Amino acid sequence: MIERTAPDGAPTVGVIGGGQLARMLAAPASALGIGLRVLTRAADDPAAQVVADTWLGDWADAATVAEFARGCAVLTVEHEGQTRSDAATCPVHPSPQALRCAQDKLFMRRTLTEYGYPGPRWAQVTDVADVVACARNWGWPVILKAPRGGYDGRGVWRVADRMSAERVLADMSGGLLAETSGGLLAEECVPFERELAAAVARSPSGQAVAYPVVATTQTDGICTEVVAPAPRLSDDRALAASHLALSIARDLAVTGMLTVELFDTGTDLLINELAMRPHNCGHWSIEGAITSQFENHLRAVLDFPLGDPRLRAPCAVMVNVLGGTATGLTGAYRHVLARDPQVKVHLYGKAVRPGRKLGHVTLLGDRPEPLLVRARHAADYLSGRITE
Amino acid sequence: MIERTAPDGAPTVGVIGGGQLARMLAAPASALGIGLRVLTRAADDPAAQVVADTWLGDWADAATVAEFARGCAVLTVEHEGQTRSDAATCPVHPSPQALRCAQDKLFMRRTLTEYGYPGPRWAQVTDVADVVACARNWGWPVILKAPRGGYDGRGVWRVADRMSAERVLADMSGGLLAETSGGLLAEECVPFERELAAAVARSPSGQAVAYPVVATTQTDGICTEVVAPAPRLSDDRALAASHLALSIARDLAVTGMLTVELFDTGTDLLINELAMRPHNCGHWSIEGAITSQFENHLRAVLDFPLGDPRLRAPCAVMVNVLGGTATGLTGAYRHVLARDPQVKVHLYGKAVRPGRKLGHVTLLGDRPEPLLVRARHAADYLSGRITE
Repeated sequence: MIERTAPDGAPTVGVIGGGQLARMLAAPASALGIGLRVLTRAADDPAAQVVADTWLGDWADAATVAEFARGCAVLTVEHEGQTRSDAATCPVHPSPQALRCAQDKLFMRRTLTEYGYPGPRWAQVTDVADVVACARNWGWPVILKAPRGGYDGRGVWRVADRMSAERVLADMSGGLLAETSGGLLAEECVPFERELAAAVARSPSGQAVAYPVVATTQTDGICTEVVAPAPRLSDDRALAASHLALSIARDLAVTGMLTVELFDTGTDLLINELAMRPHNCGHWSIEGAITSQFENHLRAVLDFPLGDPRLRAPCAVMVNVLGGTATGLTGAYRHVLARDPQVKVHLYGKAVRPGRKLGHVTLLGDRPEPLLVRARHAADYLSGRITE
Repeated sequence: MIERTAPDGAPTVGVIGGGQLARMLAAPASALGIGLRVLTRAADDPAAQVVADTWLGDWADAATVAEFARGCAVLTVEHEGQTRSDAATCPVHPSPQALRCAQDKLFMRRTLTEYGYPGPRWAQVTDVADVVACARNWGWPVILKAPRGGYDGRGVWRVADRMSAERVLADMSGGLLAETSGGLLAEECVPFERELAAAVARSPSGQAVAYPVVATTQTDGICTEVVAPAPRLSDDRALAASHLALSIARDLAVTGMLTVELFDTGTDLLINELAMRPHNCGHWSIEGAITSQFENHLRAVLDFPLGDPRLRAPCAVMVNVLGGTATGLTGAYRHVLARDPQVKVHLYGKAVRPGRKLGHVTLLGDRPEPLLVRARHAADYLSGRITE
């Protein structure tokens, strides 16, 4: 095995987790001339395929993390799972204290409520009677969330009545409930017009920059489309959303990227979720922003000055490539790349499973609608949903 | 060692050579979800630091190359040195036949002259009498070039008189002359106003795209600044330069990137050098073009449809970071990145040696002059030439 060291005193960032987010950190790490080290579980994980300094091991094991972190200037994480980042002797960004708000949805709601941030009404529920009590106040349906371990719609249920609530709670008595000894998070089902996301980067010394607020489309709980900047969002409301994200980053002492997913009710901006890492909502920034979320995450955790987050074009759109019928996605390049020489394709090197996020495509231009048509076509063709 | 395989039928591009050009192929290879395998000599070579699938070995050894190429869909090279790419069983792009024009300057001149392409007057010289004969026709100074093995000004001499020609030829009787049994290339010293470069990508099936023609500045034979597009170049002359590069690519059956370095005499465009690989003159395209030269090189050698080479902004400038007094270049980030949040820094992970190309910086904007001032400052600060 080739021993990898960062050149000439350059710092190395250790990343716990080897998914596509770690994979997309590789390009800016290489450009900045810093080291990137990834700890992941399998050799075919997206980042393991491309990051030279990949370690295979268990991030839930303290000794593994301690050894991994030796020689790193800073440790960061690319997922919300339980890790033993506390075993690292180097700084960890975001700190485990800050990260808890992104790992534990109940803790997140409690903390945001204490600070007075706007969100849907919520309660901690442990049985059906609790859920029914919530519904009495807010009406059905009620949103139930496993506080930990959910992603891409996993661990989130929309229950329309007492019976479906019972079913979810019964299912929960096995798997996920073991992780959620404190019960579930119940949230009011907010009637929203659309979803927005406000992303910021913040460094340990407190510098922060805000990305343009984007509009996001979720399909079955998976972020599938993003438009930057969010269309028809007044400057005032965009500023309010960015201000919200900057304030949360400051109050929770977040370091690195923070993405705040928001419900836009037409009048209010309500906080849906927090993520303290690069986020699907910010993939457009690789080509679309002067400094991508991946570069700014690295700069932030290293406490380097942050880069300009502004758009390079009037508009950027991102559409996810989800697993469909096609295997061997690059086989579609002959069509996709010929049809649209401007489309930027990102594939994550993941095995195809239906509905799984396998990649994304980005287009820059003047107006979102025509860009979305082209990006959807490219994504659908790559996934095999259309074949001509 | 972690075994690296490209996912799910995706092709792997094998690259002979592990310098910064191979390093900068890694980001688009990862984005496209294709495999990238690098053969290089030392573990601390720029590409070896970041490319997961790096092989250490000698590209001049046939068995090594044959084994390296097994499993690659295509082989390409990132330098003009002698390799045993003929030992590969997969296709090689550019072909050794095409590449010879970029490897052997005498052969290049002979070939271009046969096709009728414009260039300075030239001759093959083996002794001082030959050089003096050239000077009689063209006047002093005469440019002498070692046909093989030169780069960044190495292997090029400007001789002002018979005595200095004698000195060069005497020096050559050792080292480089061994590689140049056919003698040296003598060229007329063309009075030019500036240097331009026209880059194209061309695929095996004959698709080709032309990048905007750029103006380049060489200092001591090293490309140090590039402005895209070349300022004050009429559309007609830009078209002529692109047409020249496209024609050469077709006539020589070049596959991958071809960069044609040109002397702009004010009236004529004369061919100076050819490079059949990504080139320093095209580094601006990473951020500045819709599709970078690195992505289009990969697409071209794989015979994938080519990406749009046009600028994303009215203007892009690139300034090289040369080795100076500073070691540990990332130490300058606190200043450089804070002063200019828009500057894009690329460091290659190379040990510092005076005058060595260690990286480059890119800025996009509306007009070259203010961008050049900012880019020069960033580059000079990184190299240690200025410290405040």
